[in-house]
Amino acid sequence: MGPDDILEIGFAFRKSRALLSAIEFGVFTVLADGPLAEGALAARLGIHERGARDFLDTLVSLGLLERDGASHYANAPMAAAYLDAGQPSYLGGLFEYLNERMYPAWAKLTSALRTGKPQAGPSAAGGFSTFYSDGSAADTFLRGMTGASLLVGRALAGSFPWTEHSTFADVGTAQGGIAVEIARAHPHLRGIGFDLSSVERPFNDYVRGSGVRERVSFQAGDFFKDPLPRVDVLILGRVLHNWDVPIRQMLLDKAHAALPRDGALIVHDALIDDARQERPHCMLSSLNMLVQTAGGSEYTAADCRGWMQAAGFTRTQLVPLAAMQTAVIATKT
Amino acid sequence: MGPDDILEIGFAFRKSRALLSAIEFGVFTVLADGPLAEGALAARLGIHERGARDFLDTLVSLGLLERDGASHYANAPMAAAYLDAGQPSYLGGLFEYLNERMYPAWAKLTSALRTGKPQAGPSAAGGFSTFYSDGSAADTFLRGMTGASLLVGRALAGSFPWTEHSTFADVGTAQGGIAVEIARAHPHLRGIGFDLSSVERPFNDYVRGSGVRERVSFQAGDFFKDPLPRVDVLILGRVLHNWDVPIRQMLLDKAHAALPRDGALIVHDALIDDARQERPHCMLSSLNMLVQTAGGSEYTAADCRGWMQAAGFTRTQLVPLAAMQTAVIATKT
Repeated sequence: MGPDDILEIGFAFRKSRALLSAIEFGVFTVLADGPLAEGALAARLGIHERGARDFLDTLVSLGLLERDGASHYANAPMAAAYLDAGQPSYLGGLFEYLNERMYPAWAKLTSALRTGKPQAGPSAAGGFSTFYSDGSAADTFLRGMTGASLLVGRALAGSFPWTEHSTFADVGTAQGGIAVEIARAHPHLRGIGFDLSSVERPFNDYVRGSGVRERVSFQAGDFFKDPLPRVDVLILGRVLHNWDVPIRQMLLDKAHAALPRDGALIVHDALIDDARQERPHCMLSSLNMLVQTAGGSEYTAADCRGWMQAAGFTRTQLVPLAAMQTAVIATKT
Repeated sequence: MGPDDILEIGFAFRKSRALLSAIEFGVFTVLADGPLAEGALAARLGIHERGARDFLDTLVSLGLLERDGASHYANAPMAAAYLDAGQPSYLGGLFEYLNERMYPAWAKLTSALRTGKPQAGPSAAGGFSTFYSDGSAADTFLRGMTGASLLVGRALAGSFPWTEHSTFADVGTAQGGIAVEIARAHPHLRGIGFDLSSVERPFNDYVRGSGVRERVSFQAGDFFKDPLPRVDVLILGRVLHNWDVPIRQMLLDKAHAALPRDGALIVHDALIDDARQERPHCMLSSLNMLVQTAGGSEYTAADCRGWMQAAGFTRTQLVPLAAMQTAVIATKT
């Protein structure tokens, strides 16, 4: 590690901003129609001529665009796959969320560290039910979760023995991104998206276009008050990290109570390595829980297995998914 | 390039924030006194217990801190060298500037791209002379420039034939960071820091503690109105990028007029590669000029050589410095 590595860390926010602004302008979606010269592309996007060339060449230097000998810009393959809003594999909802909410929230990291209190997000807004009643913030958040769920849902669909089960419920489902990917990959499954009633409409809006609406339905509920759905497999994805340890334990206890014998619980989050020194993305996700929730954090697989054992689960298994998410799968025996 | 690379770019701002908050808390300066356990360190820093462990382990995962078997935290070698405010090689002024000014300014990148107008910095404040009269913003900016100059000044001191010259002037010198490093390395040289009169006091404050105050003096001047100092070597470092091309040409013309035969002009900035596709840091620095100035941008070596030739310089040479800065050195024949 040299001083240039330190500078790289310090200046890294600028490359995030370039990508997030590119998503905001729809650069990759416009270029899905074919390569364009600088002037035509800038005009389509509404980018002023002063910064257009530098902005587009920045995206070239980051590997997101390609520029040919005639100075026409085109999407790099990865951008075409994941950053074009017309593709089913579009991750842009996540980046819109980072752009509108997380980047400005993280300007307050110092204050979050000093006080231990959330500076933004659901907790700062008075909890999820209040937060979900703020249309604009909730909409950005929910689409962000959908974008963040795509790769993870696909990985989960391929790394669990779904053929041995018939029903599942995704608890804290948001728009149902995870449930949709699993149901798409396994036509024999029926799934439930479980969340607060205020999420029903955005859930239905998303699932309606998914091709699996006949097999994925919404169940309104509050996991603080209500029992969890009675299904073969329960999923708690990006849920435990929002809450403190006693609430996590309560949720795992509820999951154990709700599952049948041979039922499975899948927990996934940005698990920290047990030695807490190798995964900066996961450590930073834990700080994100500091910035945005009252008691949340990421945690290690060892932490999770301990809570699962306390809830009565005896067999657990670690499964790396995608996008730095790792699952801990527990079976009720 | 895979989807994880896109996610890495999108989330990169969080690692910047972790470093910038660490600088703000003085983590590396406190640890210069020796390793500390989590609780003692958090208490010294004023960090709430809730996020302390995650924050410190984030810095471990980024390679900035080390944690021993007894869970004591210590500076990693590079952090000890460059991030401890007690060291002469402290770069922290730069990071304080990024923390206080550049991170929030870049939240407005989309607006800068849409309008072509600066959103922050000297131009948005009404030009350098107005900007320098705002004590707090100017102070942060000037210390930022000093932090950014240290490695570059040392590199420049070692990569130019200073023994062939007796005098130099650093034009747009800010606190004189570059001039001090060159004078320190070459005791036969006398140098001038040339800048607006409002910079004289912070310049003198900095040079007073440098050990070269007898050989480095301030000359107040406005390069729009006044001729440049008559010295053997003129330096225009991080100056041309603030201005549009006609002003750059005017400055190079003035430099040519001021220099003696065999005199040299050293221009340095975050030069973009001629193909404009290989240096994201430099492209992003160019966007920083969009965000913070009315007409500035970075530029390529080919651009710079063209302006130098138009000014009358016939021999030019490229010299990579440090921290992504490259010099173009021109000789007056």
